[in-house]
Amino acid sequence: MKPAAAQKRIEGVLAPAITPFRRDLSPDPDRFVRHCRWLMQSGCAGLAVFGTNSEANSMSVDEKLELLEALIKGGVPAGALMPGTGHSALSDSVTMTREAVRMGCSGVLMLPPFYYKGVSDEGLFRNFSEVIERVGDERLRLYLYHIPPVSNVAITLDLIERLLARYPGIVAGAKDSSGDWSNTRAMLERFKDRGFDVFPGSEVFLLDGLRAGGKGCITATGNVNPGAINEVLRNWRSTEADKLQAAITATRKIVQKVPMIPALKAITAHFGNDPAWRTVRPPLTELTAGEEKQVITELKAAGFSMPGL
Amino acid sequence: MKPAAAQKRIEGVLAPAITPFRRDLSPDPDRFVRHCRWLMQSGCAGLAVFGTNSEANSMSVDEKLELLEALIKGGVPAGALMPGTGHSALSDSVTMTREAVRMGCSGVLMLPPFYYKGVSDEGLFRNFSEVIERVGDERLRLYLYHIPPVSNVAITLDLIERLLARYPGIVAGAKDSSGDWSNTRAMLERFKDRGFDVFPGSEVFLLDGLRAGGKGCITATGNVNPGAINEVLRNWRSTEADKLQAAITATRKIVQKVPMIPALKAITAHFGNDPAWRTVRPPLTELTAGEEKQVITELKAAGFSMPGL
Repeated sequence: MKPAAAQKRIEGVLAPAITPFRRDLSPDPDRFVRHCRWLMQSGCAGLAVFGTNSEANSMSVDEKLELLEALIKGGVPAGALMPGTGHSALSDSVTMTREAVRMGCSGVLMLPPFYYKGVSDEGLFRNFSEVIERVGDERLRLYLYHIPPVSNVAITLDLIERLLARYPGIVAGAKDSSGDWSNTRAMLERFKDRGFDVFPGSEVFLLDGLRAGGKGCITATGNVNPGAINEVLRNWRSTEADKLQAAITATRKIVQKVPMIPALKAITAHFGNDPAWRTVRPPLTELTAGEEKQVITELKAAGFSMPGL
Repeated sequence: MKPAAAQKRIEGVLAPAITPFRRDLSPDPDRFVRHCRWLMQSGCAGLAVFGTNSEANSMSVDEKLELLEALIKGGVPAGALMPGTGHSALSDSVTMTREAVRMGCSGVLMLPPFYYKGVSDEGLFRNFSEVIERVGDERLRLYLYHIPPVSNVAITLDLIERLLARYPGIVAGAKDSSGDWSNTRAMLERFKDRGFDVFPGSEVFLLDGLRAGGKGCITATGNVNPGAINEVLRNWRSTEADKLQAAITATRKIVQKVPMIPALKAITAHFGNDPAWRTVRPPLTELTAGEEKQVITELKAAGFSMPGL
């Protein structure tokens, strides 16, 4: 393995940056770079590009690598990036992870292979192990992506235990998008003092997470509300913390009344006055006019804005 | 669109050919071609390569295209092939479908995009529609792959109705791996006289399917028991049909007592005296020694063999 560079681990609010598509559904690197730069200027400590909310799994490996390259060329520091690199195909996961490390990304956020269901922890261990061994680079920081409501394949605590024992330093943490605080808490209790950084998958659990030893959050609505979410992180020990948390939770609840990914795009299109953002790739569909009107109206009533967009 | 060639539609017993991997987990084209040729000589009318049981979703598009090319060069007629070409990423589905048509494959068997859950029929319609339009070739024969126990994304009858109305002749049929005969029967009743060929996804439903207007079956155990399954098809109007069906159902039931994909590989390894076949790609794992012993012992007791392997 190549030796590890001394690199600070990523912490704070990370957004799974949404991906803009042109009318012909091809990814739009310029618009992507602009949005990512805005996120970094607006409260995000890093970007978990190619997450679920990025429509990552609607894109090929090549399409994603082109966007990643454009992002780094466009001035977003590789050290702030934690791209999603987990695919259903082992070979795709290896290619994408290797390239992310080569480009200097701070870490990678890896889904388990998500086509086959009911697979064993042994099979999942072998999957992550093959990726780590084939990439063969001590700079790799691998964050496990637990999102059973979508992947339908879980990252169990026992699996984390095995991976951490075998690859300490490389297996660096997890995003828990189970939506189940008891799971996040259990993950924190068991692993937080072992070089394993836990990020809840929603800002709803940001303050609870920080109080229990979490390192921030990686959250869909970080795409539209990064400043306010970052304020919770900055002030989590203050007496204002619960009030700040309540406000971001309220915003989240407005957004998630409608389908999340097209909602994030519609909100960005509306507040950025850039209609092209509404385009999603199949199998997703845009919000209906009624859904968009509802979410925008409620956000405005709550005083929401996207300053500088 | 390019004009359609007059080509006979594929009918009969199709196997989702298992994929051999070397010790380093790379696909093994030579062993693949040998197995596929044996299948074609042993009762299969065609091969649904890159199906669920082929570990298709554990391979990259490039790896699959190399195997497909090797197969055709190796003497398996493209007209007997119905490769799986559906991926979670639209761009991958387009690439793979376009290449399959270019190589002259009889049809393609398309999974819906399977990462996002709870997607709408409208979103799935757009996915298949984009693939058809981008491939833009009248030779395309698209078979829809309904396997909700694994994909967790269903092909509804209403979706078939819409696709068939918009792309008659191109949307050519479906494989129903729901395991729910009432769904297969409903599909047959509604679409069998409209140029839409229905294949149950297990030989357990072969005879029922044929009697209701089905065109054969596409079945995992076609990998190991193609001759006997084909005998049901050849004799389905005879008085022997129910007895022949009972025999293949009994064999199927022995195999599916253990995990199907490693079972097919273990059986092929055992009866072909070729241990390399046991290798699976993560996240799958081989059968345990006990599982393998059980399935082999029971198959032998039932008089099972793989002649000519």
